[in-house]
Amino acid sequence: MTDVLDFYFDFSSPYGYFASHRVDEVAEAGGRRAVWKPIMLGAVMKQTGVKPLIQVPIKGEYSRHDWERLGRLFGVPWVLPDPFPIATLAAARAFYWLDADDPELARDFARAIFHAYFGEGRDIGPAETVADIAEPLDIDRNDLLAAVQDPRWKQRLIDEGTTAVERGVCGSPFFIVDGEGFWGCDRLLMVQTWMTEGGW
Amino acid sequence: MTDVLDFYFDFSSPYGYFASHRVDEVAEAGGRRAVWKPIMLGAVMKQTGVKPLIQVPIKGEYSRHDWERLGRLFGVPWVLPDPFPIATLAAARAFYWLDADDPELARDFARAIFHAYFGEGRDIGPAETVADIAEPLDIDRNDLLAAVQDPRWKQRLIDEGTTAVERGVCGSPFFIVDGEGFWGCDRLLMVQTWMTEGGW
Repeated sequence: MTDVLDFYFDFSSPYGYFASHRVDEVAEAGGRRAVWKPIMLGAVMKQTGVKPLIQVPIKGEYSRHDWERLGRLFGVPWVLPDPFPIATLAAARAFYWLDADDPELARDFARAIFHAYFGEGRDIGPAETVADIAEPLDIDRNDLLAAVQDPRWKQRLIDEGTTAVERGVCGSPFFIVDGEGFWGCDRLLMVQTWMTEGGW
Repeated sequence: MTDVLDFYFDFSSPYGYFASHRVDEVAEAGGRRAVWKPIMLGAVMKQTGVKPLIQVPIKGEYSRHDWERLGRLFGVPWVLPDPFPIATLAAARAFYWLDADDPELARDFARAIFHAYFGEGRDIGPAETVADIAEPLDIDRNDLLAAVQDPRWKQRLIDEGTTAVERGVCGSPFFIVDGEGFWGCDRLLMVQTWMTEGGW
């Protein structure tokens, strides 16, 4: 048994956004620590051949409605950003750069990124915007802009994505606890049950 | 406000099978009556362009594991049938034929069909097998075999599928209450909350 709950997500994933508001308390209720792991869902979709939800007929309309409804249920701000979905390379690389030294700060940064995109509708794609969002957290703008171009953090993000696919991550959010994977925001309660009951 | 909870499913849907064990009590807890509506998910998939889960890389493996896990969680028998998935035309037509006169019997029949397929791994495709499964419920074999070839019940199934797509049904199971759609077995609790709280 490990003491962590891995939380895989894409910064461009609405269901990842919603899950981000609850994953820490779920992990805590199960006696674990949530380890946040942003990935590029596009890389996973290359493997699965699945298109973004919003581009799928019927499911796209369903999802738009569902996200608004979940925003109310979770009591968090919700706007459908434009452009959406996007590749969130800069934010994800910056996350791992911060995480190496200060996981708490990295998590605060992740929350700020999610909020900017799905709470305010800002385009979090450009590195300059990511730096703007990070500044109120006392994250140095130039250090961040350098980090997102640093081969070390580029490679780290690629490696995390490769590992995710190897571990069976097939969507966002995706939770892994004790080697057991759970896909989807709707599974948070089931993940908690798995931890508190030691599986079933 | 209506007094029903529509429960759309495909007899070839594992998540529909799991939901079938809880949908009636969820409806009752919300002061509603569950109305079971088998459809051909293949017709929905023609609209969405989505492939059956089991054929999707990574998600297929995830699903196999997840179904076994849900079988244990729900405390119901589970086998992955072969062939799977299949078109369940005969079972769905027979359902609507029974439902016209005796909704309770139709529901018992639906449970027997689900159990034969996912509890015992029997191929429920052939009409003869559907008749075998129906016989212990005192459903006349020849009447059933005639009904599944009757243009009336063929058309009814087509119409239910068309209406389902028009109402936004994008998968199985799919629940509609007060015009509000919820997709997925994992949403049962949320559907219950929606009914007991009158939405949110």
